[in-house]
Amino acid sequence: VTWAPVPAGSDFPLENLPFGVVRPRGERARTVVRIGDHVLDLAAAAIEPELTDTGSLNALLESGRTGEVRARAAEFLTGSERADVLHGVHAVDVLLPFVVGDFVDFYASIHHASNLGRILRPESPALLPNWRELPVGYHGRSGTVVVSGTPVRRPRGLVCDGAEPSPQLAPVAARPQLVPTAMLDFELEVGFVVGGPPATRVAPDDADRHVAGAVLVNDWSARDIQAFEYQPLGPHLSKSFATTVSPWLVTLDALRPFLVDAPPQDPSPHPYLQAAQPWALDLDLEARLDDTVVTATNFAGMYWTFAQQLAHLTVNGATVRAGDLFASGTVSGPERTEWGSLMELTWRGRDPIVLAGGARRGFLADGDTVTINGWGREAPGRPRIGFGDATGTVLPATPPDPGGPR
Amino acid sequence: VTWAPVPAGSDFPLENLPFGVVRPRGERARTVVRIGDHVLDLAAAAIEPELTDTGSLNALLESGRTGEVRARAAEFLTGSERADVLHGVHAVDVLLPFVVGDFVDFYASIHHASNLGRILRPESPALLPNWRELPVGYHGRSGTVVVSGTPVRRPRGLVCDGAEPSPQLAPVAARPQLVPTAMLDFELEVGFVVGGPPATRVAPDDADRHVAGAVLVNDWSARDIQAFEYQPLGPHLSKSFATTVSPWLVTLDALRPFLVDAPPQDPSPHPYLQAAQPWALDLDLEARLDDTVVTATNFAGMYWTFAQQLAHLTVNGATVRAGDLFASGTVSGPERTEWGSLMELTWRGRDPIVLAGGARRGFLADGDTVTINGWGREAPGRPRIGFGDATGTVLPATPPDPGGPR
Repeated sequence: VTWAPVPAGSDFPLENLPFGVVRPRGERARTVVRIGDHVLDLAAAAIEPELTDTGSLNALLESGRTGEVRARAAEFLTGSERADVLHGVHAVDVLLPFVVGDFVDFYASIHHASNLGRILRPESPALLPNWRELPVGYHGRSGTVVVSGTPVRRPRGLVCDGAEPSPQLAPVAARPQLVPTAMLDFELEVGFVVGGPPATRVAPDDADRHVAGAVLVNDWSARDIQAFEYQPLGPHLSKSFATTVSPWLVTLDALRPFLVDAPPQDPSPHPYLQAAQPWALDLDLEARLDDTVVTATNFAGMYWTFAQQLAHLTVNGATVRAGDLFASGTVSGPERTEWGSLMELTWRGRDPIVLAGGARRGFLADGDTVTINGWGREAPGRPRIGFGDATGTVLPATPPDPGGPR
Repeated sequence: VTWAPVPAGSDFPLENLPFGVVRPRGERARTVVRIGDHVLDLAAAAIEPELTDTGSLNALLESGRTGEVRARAAEFLTGSERADVLHGVHAVDVLLPFVVGDFVDFYASIHHASNLGRILRPESPALLPNWRELPVGYHGRSGTVVVSGTPVRRPRGLVCDGAEPSPQLAPVAARPQLVPTAMLDFELEVGFVVGGPPATRVAPDDADRHVAGAVLVNDWSARDIQAFEYQPLGPHLSKSFATTVSPWLVTLDALRPFLVDAPPQDPSPHPYLQAAQPWALDLDLEARLDDTVVTATNFAGMYWTFAQQLAHLTVNGATVRAGDLFASGTVSGPERTEWGSLMELTWRGRDPIVLAGGARRGFLADGDTVTINGWGREAPGRPRIGFGDATGTVLPATPPDPGGPR
């Protein structure tokens, strides 16, 4: 047991010890592990300061030594009491823990992809022919990944008035206008962070050698901007304005007790996507809009696992490197209460949801706070392992710039 | 005039002085400017070593002081001779000059986009409705941007046998197979590199405050992999395996003499995309396949300028930061000889091109070397300003891994 205080039922027992980066007021940023409601300053505890006193997790991730450093932190926290190197987590600024290399976002829930297909292409099969053959994904913007707590400004973009779900496929009646999105949405996701030396052609069963851990992700999306822009090269400005991540990198070692078999796949995956090990994760996930839980789902039902996603990312010879982030795509289960975006929950705004106070939402309003949370459940022989919140509040769009030529 | 030797007609006169990073054999990487066939070691010349002795251009780009450092380099090269701080460019390893932040690739040539539309959607209008309203683009993989000279391994990916141009829109007869691409292509492009502090909502006429310079780009593409994967989230593995850039960051200051008015746009661009300054660049560009020039085009005819692209990238509130790279998309002119990819030149392989030795190519063969080159022409009052080659040779696909579960 640890000498550090850990409240009962905490997301952050000794068995978790996720990595983060914090800044005590007026001091420089430092790498920590979280324990209960405190953080342990690793450099101050003399644990690998050349890797932990750098202001971000990148050097540690590159070293491939997260497991060893976490083990030394556990040793420290079960040795002689040294409360002087703990900080209360509420007394420090919690920072984005690493500089994101490439950010890839997948589309791995069959329920989410089917819902989107039904909404956007009601006259066609819900899933496109490639969906069951490969983990569909795309590159997102890494420079606008922000840490939980960062406000999210409602973006502007070109939107067609009274747009059909897919205005890109037919000529539009009137020109689009540059307006604040009227269809701001969240997407509840889980993201995986690469550690170790650059790697390519990673077999699914080697995924744990290249993935350091996981964070929660809210891939904020502007559905009306997306509808007009996305053909033929995919979403761009509709997703690039902000992506929120939870601040604690929960290691794959801490998540091992929650690895389970993935659902069966039909057709059988190509050999490069086949695995013998269980790579699904039994994690409960929820999204709250202000105080109302609007989604309660589980990560174990995802069609494509993170191990398959990593194999796919690298099968063409592309490398992944420490600090790369790849996210699952929206986590939706089969039931309506398990859908991970407002697009699905309100069926593109048609059926607004009702919040605890009685307010209705088709999409997000200014001032709304979206909080994503996730954890592995306590069970005999294993404590609860949590991620902590990934939260953000919607700010109104800025007034338009004067614009035009100078 | 400079005391450094500059061959007549060099791409790199005193008026160019592009930045690069080189490694003299056995020594550490250092920031240089290129002059003729030599490079000037900036730190050895005591020019801002805190910015120029860091192993990459990123610190210099972040400082926003490229103009000042380049001016000091010009002063140094016109002062007392100091040949001891020059290296012959052939005596050093020329490295990727900066760590790429986000890489965005646009689609800004109306001739290229129209050709692709005719090839892939022959029954529909060549341009989709969004194309004339906004600069269509997507995020590419930054971690696989490589410097000129790096060999490019033919990628594998899932390909449908006898695939229609757009197999993603209809059920496929047989399952795709993981095979080496049979449609490996180049794309001749120009890329722009961001400098200075993070910026958002950049007006087109402020582009020069945020763009440090330009490089040539070959966005290698696997057309058959792309055809199956790209709906609905855009190209992914078909483009992520490698992107080649030229090693010399030619500053926007050096390119100013080549700024010209962009072609008229119809319809009139939205106010956020309007500019009073001329932001097109009169640059000659060519692509060679081995010794055969297969494309000779010019950059001035691009429909969307880099200034408009930067404005679009940031109109939603997204930030750009030093080291971000955004590329033009394939530069194709109206004539067949001006088309910037084999997809267009051979009309998706239907009409092979004939090389100087008599060999025919629908797409690239193993061993082929593609070299992209570009320059602003000499004219009264201005010397030639060149980029140097962006070259790469195709290596055969690696044998498949054993694959499958362990």
